[in-house]
Amino acid sequence: MPPGQDLLRVALAQINPTVGDIDGNARKIADRIAEARDRSAALVVFPELALSGYPPEDLLLKTSFLERAAAALEELAAQTRGIVALVGFPQRAEDVYNAAAVLADGEVAGVYRKMYLPNYGVFDEQRYFQSGAEAGIFELNGIPIGITVCEDIWEPGPPAMTEALAGAQMIVNLSASPYRIGYGHGRERMLVQRAVDNLAAVVFVNTVGGQDELVFDGHSLAVDQDGRVLARCPQFEESLTLCTIDPREVGSARLRDTRHRANVRRQRRAAPVAEPPAVHLASLEVEGGGKTVGGATAELLGPEAEVYTALRTGLRDYVDKNGFEHVLLALSGGIDSALVAMIAVDALGPERVTCVSMPSPYSSAGTQADARAIAENLGVAFREIPIAEAMESYAEMLSDAFAGREPDIAEENIQARIRGNVVMALSNKFGWLVLATGNKSELSVGYATLYGDMAGGFAVIKDVFKGWVYRLVRWRNEQEGRELVPVSVLERPPSAELRHEQRDDDSLPPYEILDAILAGYVEEDLDAVELVRRGLPADDVERAIGMVDRAEYKRRQAPPGIKISTKAFGRDRRLPITNRFEARAEAQQRRLRALR
Amino acid sequence: MPPGQDLLRVALAQINPTVGDIDGNARKIADRIAEARDRSAALVVFPELALSGYPPEDLLLKTSFLERAAAALEELAAQTRGIVALVGFPQRAEDVYNAAAVLADGEVAGVYRKMYLPNYGVFDEQRYFQSGAEAGIFELNGIPIGITVCEDIWEPGPPAMTEALAGAQMIVNLSASPYRIGYGHGRERMLVQRAVDNLAAVVFVNTVGGQDELVFDGHSLAVDQDGRVLARCPQFEESLTLCTIDPREVGSARLRDTRHRANVRRQRRAAPVAEPPAVHLASLEVEGGGKTVGGATAELLGPEAEVYTALRTGLRDYVDKNGFEHVLLALSGGIDSALVAMIAVDALGPERVTCVSMPSPYSSAGTQADARAIAENLGVAFREIPIAEAMESYAEMLSDAFAGREPDIAEENIQARIRGNVVMALSNKFGWLVLATGNKSELSVGYATLYGDMAGGFAVIKDVFKGWVYRLVRWRNEQEGRELVPVSVLERPPSAELRHEQRDDDSLPPYEILDAILAGYVEEDLDAVELVRRGLPADDVERAIGMVDRAEYKRRQAPPGIKISTKAFGRDRRLPITNRFEARAEAQQRRLRALR
Repeated sequence: MPPGQDLLRVALAQINPTVGDIDGNARKIADRIAEARDRSAALVVFPELALSGYPPEDLLLKTSFLERAAAALEELAAQTRGIVALVGFPQRAEDVYNAAAVLADGEVAGVYRKMYLPNYGVFDEQRYFQSGAEAGIFELNGIPIGITVCEDIWEPGPPAMTEALAGAQMIVNLSASPYRIGYGHGRERMLVQRAVDNLAAVVFVNTVGGQDELVFDGHSLAVDQDGRVLARCPQFEESLTLCTIDPREVGSARLRDTRHRANVRRQRRAAPVAEPPAVHLASLEVEGGGKTVGGATAELLGPEAEVYTALRTGLRDYVDKNGFEHVLLALSGGIDSALVAMIAVDALGPERVTCVSMPSPYSSAGTQADARAIAENLGVAFREIPIAEAMESYAEMLSDAFAGREPDIAEENIQARIRGNVVMALSNKFGWLVLATGNKSELSVGYATLYGDMAGGFAVIKDVFKGWVYRLVRWRNEQEGRELVPVSVLERPPSAELRHEQRDDDSLPPYEILDAILAGYVEEDLDAVELVRRGLPADDVERAIGMVDRAEYKRRQAPPGIKISTKAFGRDRRLPITNRFEARAEAQQRRLRALR
Repeated sequence: MPPGQDLLRVALAQINPTVGDIDGNARKIADRIAEARDRSAALVVFPELALSGYPPEDLLLKTSFLERAAAALEELAAQTRGIVALVGFPQRAEDVYNAAAVLADGEVAGVYRKMYLPNYGVFDEQRYFQSGAEAGIFELNGIPIGITVCEDIWEPGPPAMTEALAGAQMIVNLSASPYRIGYGHGRERMLVQRAVDNLAAVVFVNTVGGQDELVFDGHSLAVDQDGRVLARCPQFEESLTLCTIDPREVGSARLRDTRHRANVRRQRRAAPVAEPPAVHLASLEVEGGGKTVGGATAELLGPEAEVYTALRTGLRDYVDKNGFEHVLLALSGGIDSALVAMIAVDALGPERVTCVSMPSPYSSAGTQADARAIAENLGVAFREIPIAEAMESYAEMLSDAFAGREPDIAEENIQARIRGNVVMALSNKFGWLVLATGNKSELSVGYATLYGDMAGGFAVIKDVFKGWVYRLVRWRNEQEGRELVPVSVLERPPSAELRHEQRDDDSLPPYEILDAILAGYVEEDLDAVELVRRGLPADDVERAIGMVDRAEYKRRQAPPGIKISTKAFGRDRRLPITNRFEARAEAQQRRLRALR
């Protein structure tokens, strides 16, 4: 560390890009660069693939897309003066890289290429990218700074370790790390530990906002070499958060720390040819600096607020980024559609939401009254369209074909699909987006009608178990200080109301048990034996697992919705429809019997 | 090569496994092993992952699945006597491998692990597998045989080259190589060249049959060291084809060939520590042998027969492997549903197919008569269910909501969705699978109604462009020697008949042009400029591309269907819905204008 080193003022540019909108994202990046310079930052850091949005998926197979990104990066570089910007972009070279550009003095001063390419869960990065081969350091005002991209920093070793041992006093990480419940705490813990292990400041900048099934929670961080959180951006909101870091402190800590010195020696022995072994990208000088160490530190949201905000953000961005003015949903008077209506109003405002109630002869007076009350409490447009006559016309159309058959699930599904047709007709007529209202518990076991209540462009709570649905409605009511959703909705036994006196627990285990089974089977890939060992009833386990397996074909045609769990249906869980593997098969049955 | 070496009789066991049905697949494998032994084979080769079926997708994340596969492999090995069997299976070791087991003498004598893991197109193997590190050779009756799995042999270098230079006289390849139009010819060319380049016999065994969106075409091959095809299994059918190979010929060729000798020296210099560098798995002896070199050689199908058989096979296996007794489709009198009905009858027999015609006031007498004629020609059950009254009941239900609005696409879609509801009601009542009848041209540009004509469990021709639809119907009529589908269906201008006098070319470019645009944009990821350079009209290009981009949300909810092209919608083409990248954007517009 050179003597007399100044404080370094860093701007964490937690932005919400739109996938594919390279021009719009570039404008947003340019604005933040200007703002950061105005606020005396020497360095401004953007998220992973900020220029293209994340994930661009198969847009990365289009030459024209990669060319446009390259041109936009050059234009951005030309505008970057008096500050250094780190911008994530897809780099087309002899292959394609998930890269971070160092922009300074009107040029691209260096490029770091992501080394670890995740290819699990929702990630398919090995489909698109070549992995980078080398760690990367640039010097800013004499301070060596190491670059990493997302997955790179989840590894305790290289490239962050390599960079730190080669002298980097700060490790920067550009991320697009998708939200799931409670994940932010573990991520913050990991980043704090990386800072401590590397005796370096860590600056982590995550993207924010919704992209199809994913929502990014932001929660960008600056941490010092002792693991103290110096700055934290809010979750789920765009933010340009400034933080001042004292690189002298890193230097002092390293003078005191014998472990670090020994590790440096080990690294030099391992890679004796290059000292430092990391690639030096550039040596840059700019004005800018802070006076006191630290920055603004947002509070983390509680669990219900966090999940609710994730859903609100994911819905808002799906609607706005796809250019919809208005949304529509079927409000049954049940708890699921009540929650979706609440989220829609909080995301878009009541004037952009229409609710429609479509009572049949099986709809109770109670649920109808509740539907009206919810719409009124939320201040949304509300329309009632009874479907009894349409039901009769189907009964007549099908009377020959169904002659001699008892009413069964076919008639129940006809009702649900009449409602699906009505909401889609309103959608087509007025250009509104239809929100589907099914929850994860139902979707797991197939307790939903394809093209009926599953119809819609976006399924807001498809990754929310029933237990969480109640929790979120109760929490939101409490926040409001009044019953936005009447307590009768919370207390009535759940029912699809597709026949007289129907109740969900006629067909399904109680939701407390069902949710626990599903969490184990769907999210953790456990089998029946493992679930029973957790104390779940064997009969319920077997029945629920069978239902999950048989409903795969329905889920394949479900609308996209927001991932909030470890494993959401959709790109996260990829099971064949044609699949004769049964977690209930012979050998399993024997083991299960032994457990009873 | 030891002197006096005998002929080697190899059985190519081209089987049709079912994903997840480990017990059923193991029984099928055991039966084929016994049959091959009875027919004097010394070696029997099965496809890639024959034991689990391919692709098992996220079943590979389940411990119980991997354990069941391991147990089944042990059971199979215990039954393998008097013959050597090569069986593809997922191996759980310290990680998971896509592996080939050498079964002999009641034991697993060795395991080869796939080195090249495809992670493009429909493949996600890097999501599941660790790659193998070493080539693998075993000796059978003194003959060194190299093992490769699928993608491995697409590489001209190692592992096949390593094995051949280390002495392997035959290279065996276990594959699960999905069908696409004309692909088999290129694959055969590649395999012939590998044999010639390596101066080794090549035995390639591919899986056969349908699995969700994929269909495997078999077309297994044995090729000698001079590139002569010694045996070829039929396309799309299970087969146990025997082929006798003379390893002395390989030896003789290598005595004559200086290039091979020089390459061996080079390889020894490159890997001086091990000679041969490939891992020796086992040295085995069994009885069995042939008298004359060669085997049965199936003829390849012509283009129409090939595509038609792919569709017939994919449909048959989706229906049968998922346990459906009967299928149902809406027969409009148009060409698309006519083709689907033909394929269904050829796949399942007429007694397992019901067609339903659902005329509206916009249905012409001609199409209605044609629908009846097609059903009669095919010998299927046929039912007419007019929808006019249901249309009226929707008009009434929605009269308030639609007050003051002109009829538009909303009313058209209501009709399509009434039909969707009717076919789904029949499906729910009788347990029949609904076949959707849309083609790729329509699905590309979104000229289809979500939950309407797109409704169904399986979309047989979703990857078939309109031009090919005509080609296949004409071909099938010719095969039959009579008009199974009346010529009026072939000659009538395409129409959705959702309003009076509607024609597809009111809204779309002519299909010859549309199909060419879509082939370039969808399958080759070209942009507008590149398409115009190919001679396509700029206006049509821009319009079609815009329609493709905007219809992504519909395709996301489409039923699965059979991939026959380079790039099918579904797992093969992964584009975001929220996507503001336009191939028509500003810079493109300028370039396009310059081309006009």
